[in-house]
Amino acid sequence: MSSAPEQPYLVQSRRKPLILVTNDDGIHAPGIRALAKAMDEIGEVVVIAPSTEQSAVGHSITLYSPIRVVEHNFGGDMSHIPAMGITGTPCDCMKLALHELLHRKPDLAVSGINKGSNVAINVIYSGTISAATESSVNGIDSVAFSLDTTDINADYTPSAKYAKLIAEKVLRSQLPRGVVLSANIPDIPEDEIKGIKITRQARSQWEEVFVGRRDPSNKPYYWYRGMLNILDDSEDTDSTVVDGGYVSITPLQYDRTAHGCIDVMKTWKW
Amino acid sequence: MSSAPEQPYLVQSRRKPLILVTNDDGIHAPGIRALAKAMDEIGEVVVIAPSTEQSAVGHSITLYSPIRVVEHNFGGDMSHIPAMGITGTPCDCMKLALHELLHRKPDLAVSGINKGSNVAINVIYSGTISAATESSVNGIDSVAFSLDTTDINADYTPSAKYAKLIAEKVLRSQLPRGVVLSANIPDIPEDEIKGIKITRQARSQWEEVFVGRRDPSNKPYYWYRGMLNILDDSEDTDSTVVDGGYVSITPLQYDRTAHGCIDVMKTWKW
Repeated sequence: MSSAPEQPYLVQSRRKPLILVTNDDGIHAPGIRALAKAMDEIGEVVVIAPSTEQSAVGHSITLYSPIRVVEHNFGGDMSHIPAMGITGTPCDCMKLALHELLHRKPDLAVSGINKGSNVAINVIYSGTISAATESSVNGIDSVAFSLDTTDINADYTPSAKYAKLIAEKVLRSQLPRGVVLSANIPDIPEDEIKGIKITRQARSQWEEVFVGRRDPSNKPYYWYRGMLNILDDSEDTDSTVVDGGYVSITPLQYDRTAHGCIDVMKTWKW
Repeated sequence: MSSAPEQPYLVQSRRKPLILVTNDDGIHAPGIRALAKAMDEIGEVVVIAPSTEQSAVGHSITLYSPIRVVEHNFGGDMSHIPAMGITGTPCDCMKLALHELLHRKPDLAVSGINKGSNVAINVIYSGTISAATESSVNGIDSVAFSLDTTDINADYTPSAKYAKLIAEKVLRSQLPRGVVLSANIPDIPEDEIKGIKITRQARSQWEEVFVGRRDPSNKPYYWYRGMLNILDDSEDTDSTVVDGGYVSITPLQYDRTAHGCIDVMKTWKW
């Protein structure tokens, strides 16, 4: 009736830290290539990423479609890095990697380098951050990396260097339980980056726009389009810090309980 | 070249509170029918929900496909309730409703009643909760409702009564800024429900399972399957409270910054 596929990949070496790499821009994106290459300098790397772009899928998981795994080769000086494309979301990649494709628990999971920053409210939409959150939920120290650019020809060299520096730091230390890091890197030359700052999410809101059109049969449809308005220019926010030429690192939690609000809600007469 | 579709719906009355209703099980699900009917007793209701089931899509939004809007009629004693099915995610529904389809800001947004509880870590996967979060981000008091059942023939009458009670309470009061409520209701007769308790998310972890199979061409694929393990049986958690026969209300925030961790991270030598 059914038979399990062979394990597409076995991790054999135990000498170096095992680093799982994913993203939401898809396995063919330049950002994941730069990230995998940087991680290859400090650990044993396995790349398990969506076959196609999955931006803004948030913490979506695939329940009603089968998931396919296709081997991928980055070629050139990266051809030794095992890589697989997954027909699913960034969270699917993490779940499938951790529970099916890898034969030992990674020491670190990294996601990115995303084309585009993930500051302020964008944290809740970002597939890049959701992937890192998913591995964090599974007890693995995790970092999401995003480059503040809209340029499809952006240079990921400076951000990859910072990704390596941050990954080494996390490997040597240990993140508090329940906390995942989100790093946002300005898209400027390396010698212009002023350093790293620990930040919080800026308050912000999308100004939503939908473009209404009609198809050739005169039936209406909408395209989503929006613009992020930052409502908070304090010095300690992710967006201010990145705009100022620093790498921002925001510690994020996945417990969404508004603990500070529980006592207030208890005073309501239910 | 392009022309905007006519507004499919105008809200005209200003006498009653305007209540926007959505879900992630799709507009044909029994839970949204029960919720819309309950809200109809206390306000002017508009239903804008996904055309098809969108469970576990989290905070996914549609960027690369056009979104269609199809009018829906619940029929019978609900035929006066304006309703639209959207070819998108729960978050798309909220964005499109608030910024395109409604002509005034709703006084309340409600999501559900979901078939299945959304306790513990499930908060991050739930489209039901993401929809309520999205409207909360947009400054509207919002509540997600979930029934702790797997029964497709479940009776939504008791949970709809509690949804009405909670909605009335929120309409009379005001939620703290940045906070959205998630209510989980036990699937038991109304006279066995013991009351309402304010809770926090239980610590938990999915025990992930992927079922590996081969298609008729002998190519492998995976189905996701998992089991939620609750790791926390404290009396103040959502799962404990629902298991004990109470309605749980958890206040959730969408700022994911781990504020308590910022000072620790600053001590790391970056």
